[in-house]
Amino acid sequence: MSVSTSKKYKSDLEIANKSTMKHISQIAESLQLTEEDYDLYGKYKAKVSLNVLDNLKEQQDGKLILVTAINPTSAGEGKSTVTVGLGDALKQLGEKAVIAMREPSLGPVMGIKGGACGGGYAQVLPMDDINLHFTGDLHAITTANNALAAIIDNHIHQGNALNIDQRRIVWKRVVDLNDRALRKVIIGLGGPVQGVPREDGFDITVASEIMAILCLATSLEDLKKRLARIVIGYTYDKQPVTVANLEVEGALALLLKDAICPNLVQTIEHTPAFVHGGPFANIAHGCNSVLATKMALKLGDYVVTEAGFGADLGAEKFLHIKSRSAELKPDAVVIVATIRALKMHGGVAKNELAEENLNALRAGFENLQKHCENISEFGLPFVVALNRFVTDSDAEIALFDELCKQYDIAYELTEVWEKGGEGGLALAKKLISVIEENDLQFRYLYDLEDSVETKIINIAQKIYGAMGVDFSTKVKRQLQEIEKHGWSNLPVCMAKTQYSLSDDPSKLGKPENFMITVRELKPCIGAGFIVALTGDVMTMPGLPKSPAALKMDINEKGEAIGLF
Amino acid sequence: MSVSTSKKYKSDLEIANKSTMKHISQIAESLQLTEEDYDLYGKYKAKVSLNVLDNLKEQQDGKLILVTAINPTSAGEGKSTVTVGLGDALKQLGEKAVIAMREPSLGPVMGIKGGACGGGYAQVLPMDDINLHFTGDLHAITTANNALAAIIDNHIHQGNALNIDQRRIVWKRVVDLNDRALRKVIIGLGGPVQGVPREDGFDITVASEIMAILCLATSLEDLKKRLARIVIGYTYDKQPVTVANLEVEGALALLLKDAICPNLVQTIEHTPAFVHGGPFANIAHGCNSVLATKMALKLGDYVVTEAGFGADLGAEKFLHIKSRSAELKPDAVVIVATIRALKMHGGVAKNELAEENLNALRAGFENLQKHCENISEFGLPFVVALNRFVTDSDAEIALFDELCKQYDIAYELTEVWEKGGEGGLALAKKLISVIEENDLQFRYLYDLEDSVETKIINIAQKIYGAMGVDFSTKVKRQLQEIEKHGWSNLPVCMAKTQYSLSDDPSKLGKPENFMITVRELKPCIGAGFIVALTGDVMTMPGLPKSPAALKMDINEKGEAIGLF
Repeated sequence: MSVSTSKKYKSDLEIANKSTMKHISQIAESLQLTEEDYDLYGKYKAKVSLNVLDNLKEQQDGKLILVTAINPTSAGEGKSTVTVGLGDALKQLGEKAVIAMREPSLGPVMGIKGGACGGGYAQVLPMDDINLHFTGDLHAITTANNALAAIIDNHIHQGNALNIDQRRIVWKRVVDLNDRALRKVIIGLGGPVQGVPREDGFDITVASEIMAILCLATSLEDLKKRLARIVIGYTYDKQPVTVANLEVEGALALLLKDAICPNLVQTIEHTPAFVHGGPFANIAHGCNSVLATKMALKLGDYVVTEAGFGADLGAEKFLHIKSRSAELKPDAVVIVATIRALKMHGGVAKNELAEENLNALRAGFENLQKHCENISEFGLPFVVALNRFVTDSDAEIALFDELCKQYDIAYELTEVWEKGGEGGLALAKKLISVIEENDLQFRYLYDLEDSVETKIINIAQKIYGAMGVDFSTKVKRQLQEIEKHGWSNLPVCMAKTQYSLSDDPSKLGKPENFMITVRELKPCIGAGFIVALTGDVMTMPGLPKSPAALKMDINEKGEAIGLF
Repeated sequence: MSVSTSKKYKSDLEIANKSTMKHISQIAESLQLTEEDYDLYGKYKAKVSLNVLDNLKEQQDGKLILVTAINPTSAGEGKSTVTVGLGDALKQLGEKAVIAMREPSLGPVMGIKGGACGGGYAQVLPMDDINLHFTGDLHAITTANNALAAIIDNHIHQGNALNIDQRRIVWKRVVDLNDRALRKVIIGLGGPVQGVPREDGFDITVASEIMAILCLATSLEDLKKRLARIVIGYTYDKQPVTVANLEVEGALALLLKDAICPNLVQTIEHTPAFVHGGPFANIAHGCNSVLATKMALKLGDYVVTEAGFGADLGAEKFLHIKSRSAELKPDAVVIVATIRALKMHGGVAKNELAEENLNALRAGFENLQKHCENISEFGLPFVVALNRFVTDSDAEIALFDELCKQYDIAYELTEVWEKGGEGGLALAKKLISVIEENDLQFRYLYDLEDSVETKIINIAQKIYGAMGVDFSTKVKRQLQEIEKHGWSNLPVCMAKTQYSLSDDPSKLGKPENFMITVRELKPCIGAGFIVALTGDVMTMPGLPKSPAALKMDINEKGEAIGLF
C-alpha cells in the first residue's frame, strides 16, 4: 500500500489550517475578473456579480464534467473530494479548470458530518468559513422562507382576504439546523391576539423550495418570476394560492439579492471553485446553482461539477431538471466508485468492509454496471473513478480492473484525498481524451410533453430498472389536480432513497423484479418541478446522541476547532 | 420656516441612493487602520478585527457622548438621526469623530419601520444592506440561539442525562422576523421518534440573551464565558441548567466568531460609523456593542453613541449595565426632544400634533425636565437637542427657548435630517465646550452589592419618580431563588413601557403618586443582569395589516426599492 496510515488520520481541518491560501483577488485575477466584478467577503471569499455573465455572453463555454457516483454507503464515497481533486488535476495539466460545487448546510455540520468541503488534500478553503456561515446564502434563504411564512399567517390573522384554507397551507418554516422537535408543531396558540392556531412543521433550510429556486434561476428577473409562482397553499375552494397573490415576490427577491451571486473560493492547490447553492438531493434536485455553473463555463476551459447522491438520483435530476432548464450539456461524466461500497452492494455488512472479499466485490460490481448503462442511455461518455481507500487490497484492485476490462468500462484509480491533484492526473487525462473523441448524442429519457405519470414510469424503468410504478390513490387524485392546474409539463423530481436503485434501502446491488411506489406528489411550481415521493422522505434531520457540536470550539487565536 | 416641504418628502432610500460612498478602505485608512485590521464585506462594509483593541491598548480613549431622549412618541423622536448628524457635525468642526450605534433588526424593517439607519441627510450607508442582512450578525445570533435550542431538545430526546424539566425550559427559539404565530407553540409532536412534546415559543432575534451577551462581551474569551453561564432551564429538583452543563459554549462561540467583530460603515458625509449589535431595549439593555464603543474610543477623539428608548430606560441601562460592566464613562449626554412629543406629553392627541399648541408644550415640558434632573443625578453634563420638525411653529420654538432659560437647561436646535452635519454644528460646539468645562463627578444610583429589591426600588424612585414598587408574589419567591443561586450582585435590567416614566403607557408628562409593579424577574446570567418585568413585554412583534414588505422590491439594476 502506498498510502501511509498516519497521514490518513490527520483531520481535514488540520490539513486545511496548514494550507496557505492566496488572496481571493488573485484567484479572481487568474479568471480575468476585475475588481468591479466581485465583492470581497474577507480575504478568501468573494461574491461574483451577475454582470459577469452579461459581459461574457459571447464567450464560448468550456467543457462541462459532471461527477456522480454509484449508490453510496452511509458515509458517502468521496464525490466532492473527487470533484475537487479532479479540478486540481486538470489545473496541474495546464488547463484552465474551474470547480462548481454545492455549499454545505450547517445542520449536518453540527450534527454528524462536521464539514462538507471535500477531504484530505482535495478540499475547498477556507473550510471553516464555508462550513459555518460562509457568505450568508443559507441565512438569506432561511429568512426569505420564514418571511413568507410570517406573511401568510399574518394575512390570515388580518382577515384572510385571499380565503386561504389554513388546513391546506403547504409552505413550511425552516431552520438551517437539525432540529427534530420542530418537525411537527402547532403554532398560533394563545388566543385571538396571537394569530390563528394551525398545524405546521419546520424543514431544514436546504429543503426549502427557495433553495431549489435560487439554484435554478438564470437571472435576478427569473428568480423573481419563480418566487412569484410558488404555491403556498390552497383556498377553501381548493384553488392554489401563490406568492404573487400575496404580493411579496419583490420583498423575497430583495432578501436574496446577494445570495443569488455565486461564491468564489479556492482549493488547497489554488484552483478557482464556485461553491454556491445546495438544495437537498432527496426533496429537490441536489445540484449547485445554474448561475455558478454557467459562470464557471464562461471563465474556465474545463468545469467540474457534481450532483447529489448516486447517479440514479443525482445525475438523473442534473440531466432532466438542471440541464434541461438551463440548457446545459455535460461533455463527460465521472462515476465515482469505491471497493468498499461495491462490497457492500455484494452483501458485506458495514462493519466488515475493511476485510478483503473478492466474491462480494464481484457480486456488487453490477451496481456500477447499471449506472454506467444509464449514463450511456443519456448518450454521454463517462469514466469511472475508483476512489482508493487504505483498506482496499491489491487483489481487490486487480479484480476491479479485470471486471472493468471484461465489461469494457473505462476507469482510473484516484488518490486525491491523499495526494491532491496529483492523485487525479490519470483521471483528468483520460477525461480530456474521452471528451475529444466523443461522438455521442445527448438525449433526455423523457419529454416534458409526456404526462407526469409517463415521466415517472420512464425514470423508474429506464434508470432504476423497475418493472413498473404503483401510484397511490392520493397520487392518482393529485395527477388529475396537476393536470387541471396546468402543471403537467413540468419535469419530475424523484425523492427516493439514495442507498438502492429501488425505493427500498435494503435492496443493494442491482435489484430486479421490483415496483416503485409513489405515495405522494409535491408540486414545486416556483422551482419548476413536481416532486414524486417514494417512501418517507426526511426533510428535517435530527441530531445524534453526541452531536459534532460538542467537539466544536474556537481557540484564543480565533481559529475553529472540531470541524472535520 | 426654513425647512422646505418638498425636500422633506424625499425618502431616506432616495437620499441614500443619491449619495456617493467612499470605499470603506478609505474610511478605515482615515482611522489609521491597516488592511490587516479588517475584512471587507463588499466595497462599503468591513468587519474590524478585535486585534485592533489589543494593538491600541495604550492609546488614550476619546470623549464619549451618549445620545438619549425624552419619552418618545410611537414614531420615535430621531435619536439615531441626531446621533449620526452630531457625528457629522463634529467631523465638520475638524474633530476626529466616530459614531457607534446599533444595527437594525429585519423584523421591524419588514413590518412597520422600513429601515433604521438614521434619516434624511443624517444616515449611515449603505442603508439598504444595513437594513437587510448587513454582515450577517443577526443571522449568526439566530443560528447560535436555535442551535442551543436544538441541543436542549435533543438532550432530552436522547435520555435527558441532565434531568432537565421540560416544563421549566426558559430558552426560547428565535427568528429575526415579526411572526406573531410563533409566540406560543407546541413542539415535538408526532410520536416518540420526533422528540418530546412541550410548550415553547419564539422571540425576535434581538430579544435573544445571546444578542445581549454579544453586546456586553469584552473579548472572545469573555463571550465564551458568558455563553457558558446562560441558564437554559431547571432540573426536576429546580437547579439551574447552564450551557456549560450541555458543553456547547465552544460551538456557540465558534458560530459567533465573526459576529463579535464590529462593523465599520460610513455616514452620507463619510464619517466613520460602527454599527454593531442591537439588543431589544425592552427585554435587554438596548445599546450597541461594548467592543464597538471601545474600539471607537481608541480610534476617535469624539465618539457619539446612543441608547434605546427614552433616558429613563435607555440611558439608565447604558449607565448601570453597559458602562459599569465595560468600565466606560460618558463625558456628556445629549437629550433629544421634539416639540411634537412634548405637546403629546402635554395632552395633545397624536393626530393633532401638527397644530400649534403652546399650553400643551408648556405642560409637557416637565417630561424633559425630569430627564434632565435624572442625568444630573448621575453627575453627567448634558445638552438638550431640540430636533426640529416642519410642523414646529416659531411661537413654539420661542416658548421652548423661554422654558429652557427659565429652568437653566442648555439646549441647541438641530436640523440634521434636513441639513446633515451642518444642522448639528451648534450642538457639537456646545458639547465640546460642555465637556471641556465639566467638573462633575459620575456616580451610579445603586450599588451592585444592594439587594435586587433595593436596586429596583432605587431606579423606580430616583429615575421614574415613583412612590415605590409593588412586587408580585411570584417575584418575592424569585428574589429568594436568586439569592439562593448567588445571582444577587447582578445589575437590574428594567423592562418597562418607553412611552411613560411610569409603567403605564397612558401616563404622559411627569406622572406623580404612582407605584411601579414588578410582576416577574428573568435572570439572564450569561448577559449578566436580572430583567425586571413591569407589565407585558412583547418579545415577538407582529406584522401590521399592510406590512412594509409589500412595498419592498428590487429593480433590474439590483437596487433596493421600498426601504425608507
